[in-house]
Amino acid sequence: MLSTLDRTLTLDKAHYQHQMEDLMQQLRQLQHQCWKAQLPCIVVLEGWAASGKGALVKKVVQYMDPRGFQVHPVWPATPEERAYPFLWRFWHKLPPKGTIAIFYHSWYTRVLEDRLFKRIPGEDVPTALRDINALERQLTDDGMAIAKFWLHISRKELKKRLKGYSKDELLAWRVRPEDWQQVKHYNKYLDLAEEMILHTSTGNAPWTLVEADCKRWARVKVLSAVVASLREALDRRQVLQAAPPPTPAASAPSPRLDPMEPNWLAQVDLTPALTREDYKAQLKLAQTELRRVQQQVHQQKLPVLMLFEGWDAAGKGGAIKRLTDILDPRSYRVHAFAAPSDEEKAQHYLWRFWRRLPAAGNIGIFDRSWYGRVMVERIEGFATEMEWRRAYREINEFEAQLVTAGYVLVKFWLHISPEEQLRRFEERRQDPFKQHKLTQEDWRNRDKWTAYEVAVNQMIQRTHTPLAPWTLVPADDKYYARVKVLQSVIQAIHTALKSKA
Amino acid sequence: MLSTLDRTLTLDKAHYQHQMEDLMQQLRQLQHQCWKAQLPCIVVLEGWAASGKGALVKKVVQYMDPRGFQVHPVWPATPEERAYPFLWRFWHKLPPKGTIAIFYHSWYTRVLEDRLFKRIPGEDVPTALRDINALERQLTDDGMAIAKFWLHISRKELKKRLKGYSKDELLAWRVRPEDWQQVKHYNKYLDLAEEMILHTSTGNAPWTLVEADCKRWARVKVLSAVVASLREALDRRQVLQAAPPPTPAASAPSPRLDPMEPNWLAQVDLTPALTREDYKAQLKLAQTELRRVQQQVHQQKLPVLMLFEGWDAAGKGGAIKRLTDILDPRSYRVHAFAAPSDEEKAQHYLWRFWRRLPAAGNIGIFDRSWYGRVMVERIEGFATEMEWRRAYREINEFEAQLVTAGYVLVKFWLHISPEEQLRRFEERRQDPFKQHKLTQEDWRNRDKWTAYEVAVNQMIQRTHTPLAPWTLVPADDKYYARVKVLQSVIQAIHTALKSKA
Repeated sequence: MLSTLDRTLTLDKAHYQHQMEDLMQQLRQLQHQCWKAQLPCIVVLEGWAASGKGALVKKVVQYMDPRGFQVHPVWPATPEERAYPFLWRFWHKLPPKGTIAIFYHSWYTRVLEDRLFKRIPGEDVPTALRDINALERQLTDDGMAIAKFWLHISRKELKKRLKGYSKDELLAWRVRPEDWQQVKHYNKYLDLAEEMILHTSTGNAPWTLVEADCKRWARVKVLSAVVASLREALDRRQVLQAAPPPTPAASAPSPRLDPMEPNWLAQVDLTPALTREDYKAQLKLAQTELRRVQQQVHQQKLPVLMLFEGWDAAGKGGAIKRLTDILDPRSYRVHAFAAPSDEEKAQHYLWRFWRRLPAAGNIGIFDRSWYGRVMVERIEGFATEMEWRRAYREINEFEAQLVTAGYVLVKFWLHISPEEQLRRFEERRQDPFKQHKLTQEDWRNRDKWTAYEVAVNQMIQRTHTPLAPWTLVPADDKYYARVKVLQSVIQAIHTALKSKA
Repeated sequence: MLSTLDRTLTLDKAHYQHQMEDLMQQLRQLQHQCWKAQLPCIVVLEGWAASGKGALVKKVVQYMDPRGFQVHPVWPATPEERAYPFLWRFWHKLPPKGTIAIFYHSWYTRVLEDRLFKRIPGEDVPTALRDINALERQLTDDGMAIAKFWLHISRKELKKRLKGYSKDELLAWRVRPEDWQQVKHYNKYLDLAEEMILHTSTGNAPWTLVEADCKRWARVKVLSAVVASLREALDRRQVLQAAPPPTPAASAPSPRLDPMEPNWLAQVDLTPALTREDYKAQLKLAQTELRRVQQQVHQQKLPVLMLFEGWDAAGKGGAIKRLTDILDPRSYRVHAFAAPSDEEKAQHYLWRFWRRLPAAGNIGIFDRSWYGRVMVERIEGFATEMEWRRAYREINEFEAQLVTAGYVLVKFWLHISPEEQLRRFEERRQDPFKQHKLTQEDWRNRDKWTAYEVAVNQMIQRTHTPLAPWTLVPADDKYYARVKVLQSVIQAIHTALKSKA
């Protein structure tokens, strides 16, 4: 594919200048339009060393409003970054809505340079490619424009340019020893690039292959493609916005459980309970064991993430407390997720969870999670039907990325009956110390019990995967629920430690 | 001081439990009050290894709502963190308003463990102490409660505990080799701690020295002090809020220039101008030189920060563009500062600038800056008089921290006459490509020219320091201004490189 590119393509100076002038004007206008439409955009520049990426970025940057874009040079991951899934550091650099990010090298480093220098085991490559495709689809589905470029030059040209740079006082410092390795292993690197392009050329985020022996030709080709991709994304946005606004499920015809689909919640046996004595004994046993496994989590650098979902008043707080009572506060963190901040709203909905992921060796406890997308956001109409339907897959992908990166992921649904919830609400209403925990919203949510029942059943049905199964906890009895949560966490960590050993 | 502490102080179990129960109830209530009052709080735990810090944190954490606090264990700085001033990583961890952060070790590591292990040159210690005091004052002036604790045990007790821990399967992993160094160099470490406490015991953020041979005594003492300090901060907050709201200077009796104070702006000679030919020649010369110095900035790992302030339409954008046209986009970033985001509003006003600082070897270009505090925030009444008056000192401290950490700091005020501004506004109004740059707010600001003149003169007067001088750029002629900006940047970098060599 790459070797058949016609590298003799050139552009003379007059045509080049004329076309560039025109492209730059368009680009600047498009930048304003993207800002107005709050459309984010990513330009990925990959290719051989000295293929002209740097000069190209500079050219583009000269014409753009510096307030609306960022350039992200990508170096090898630092030790801190390596304590997370490999996409983590890129999520941190995603452009907020309305802005443009240029990645000078990118997540593709993982399947290119990391492969060349054997920083990634060969068997992890397919997974990395899968994760990359998922990332790009998640972003473009959310409205982002992504344009990816491979700047291609011949081995001869590469060698010539590196030699030239090395002699130039102002350029020599930019030539890395790794760049010379590309000359040495040109064919190997070429094969890796071909494979990468083959597996990641998608309709939503296509690669543009650029004949870059002639720098003028390359620049015009890249910029034309960026312009086209921005226009397309803006058009797509208009079509989407012309669609009718989402109907809140709550105000839609009252939802019903589909008798053809499994009713997960109805199958939970809510009768298990513990006496106070049994609770005390079992809690103590579990907490001692948890302390022991936390030490191993730390020593084995295992990342652990548990998330808590459940009905209002199901006892999430109490269960979390029984965990944190015993954990060393230096290596866990509790994150409660309510409404997103405005910085979070300017990003993909998964962004705020990525930014709170625990690093290897740490324990993250999420009080509510990304599942809000298919529950409250669905029911209240904050997400369109297209958005929440898509979310099942996005969530499965995200969780698969975590688990394959070594995370212990435990997902709890704390289940209670509507009668038990009412009892607890009344109890809270009467207890002056608990009154603050009961809000009008709790009562409103209670009125939507069936809507939630439908949503929760579908959520479990679609996200109860072998890699990331749900743990449904019968929670009408708090004692039983707390012990069950602790035991499940311990069990999950044990399993992970065993498979690691 | 420390050696005279009465380490025989103890508390029996019955009294301890009674007092702890009471303290914990208070603490939980206070946490809610802090949340309501949006008051942030920091608890700093320092002291000998095995002095009971970890168990104490755990105790506190058990009683608090995990959603409203964070625990920050502090390890030695990573290479990434060392590319910034030493306080940078702590600014990132400051608690948002309404929440509590517990620092398990803290910025004091810089003047304790870093000294013991010779990670800081002796002559840098006074500066570090100065910066720490400035940090704490800035935060408490902003309403934060800070409680600092030194947990003290004897050498004998220290040795006994470390030995005991090392034998306990569940504790051994927490004992670091560094902890044994404390036994070996007990007296040295003691001296360092004494000196630290001596220099950083301030009225706003006092140290509480805790006799910690008896763990019960220590816990009760620490918690009592935390409770007292939260109460005090809440009271202080009430007093402050009872004060009359700030009057916008604009609606106050029209401001006048004080004839007793120097009029910096009036002294700027606005006549210098360049012909188009001279401009082109000088620009080219300067840009070539800038390219050369950027290379050295990168190689010498010099951090560079330039900020641009000036009248509306003074040409900040154009001047920035002449810089970025030539800089390698991989190592600079432009940050435009307008209204803060809600995450930024939940922090000290300097926080959003700390989080955008360029790392060593990079160039940060700030389009507007922390000087907004003493200009627009003052004039529009977003900051109280107390706040903006205090800001001069805070800014000087901040800039001194940057410069002593090795930053090249260049501060530009782009100056034009009111007549020239009017001419440019009219020009923008007529040019369809520039219309978007002219807003109603620009006209409103123009009406407040005198108020700004007063504020800007005072700002320059109070923040034109030997370490961080202002560069006042005559900008009625755009050509002259742009060249002047470039030359000043080059000059500043040259000076820094020379003093580094």
